Amino acid sequence: MKTQEVADTLVRLCSQGKFEEATKALYSPDIVSVEAGAPPGQSREAKGLAAVMAKGEWWVANHEVHSVKVEGPLVAGSHFAVTFKMDVTFKPESRRFQMEEVAVYKVADGKVVYEQFFYDM
Amino acid sequence: MKTQEVADTLVRLCSQGKFEEATKALYSPDIVSVEAGAPPGQSREAKGLAAVMAKGEWWVANHEVHSVKVEGPLVAGSHFAVTFKMDVTFKPESRRFQMEEVAVYKVADGKVVYEQFFYDM
Repeated sequence: MKTQEVADTLVRLCSQGKFEEATKALYSPDIVSVEAGAPPGQSREAKGLAAVMAKGEWWVANHEVHSVKVEGPLVAGSHFAVTFKMDVTFKPESRRFQMEEVAVYKVADGKVVYEQFFYDM
Repeated sequence: MKTQEVADTLVRLCSQGKFEEATKALYSPDIVSVEAGAPPGQSREAKGLAAVMAKGEWWVANHEVHSVKVEGPLVAGSHFAVTFKMDVTFKPESRRFQMEEVAVYKVADGKVVYEQFFYDM
């Protein structure tokens, strides 16, 4: 798949809340995922599909998603950008909040090999 | 200015090729600018308005711009993303090429305080 196809598929699946399916379908085994920040003592970077899937599973287990809006993609060469706007409840604290972030992805050989998230902390 | 206004102004000025004007009008003195890569021995990061202006001046002095297309912005909270697609000639080598990149910006107190570029190297 070319960048545009990967981008369109990611937007379609994530808009439907199918984050895990998007990861399984589109991500390289060698994915590198970079958050805007990390908890003390932990890394901003997750490397490899298992680590990224584990991060996603933690997120899904700890959040109730009320709505998801995905905008984009903007595609340039092997990179693309989207925005996520989510209304979620962080279940351990029963705290509902709106999160907004920019995500940038890099595609190589038809798979997402890099992702980086930008949001306020 | 809010993120959306800064984003719209940056897109408007850059679409007109007014990169220096965009920097002067919209950037914080404490801007941090991060490239996808750096020449050997140099840093990916430029810090402060003087360093970022110098980088821009080098770029303008060394490139002839045939066309610029800016897409976006996608805005999320204090961040926004755009793409640049430029047809340019690198003057020292008379080498014409098309560059495509994703750029992500962070806005604080109405000014751009962070930018990061994503492109193939």
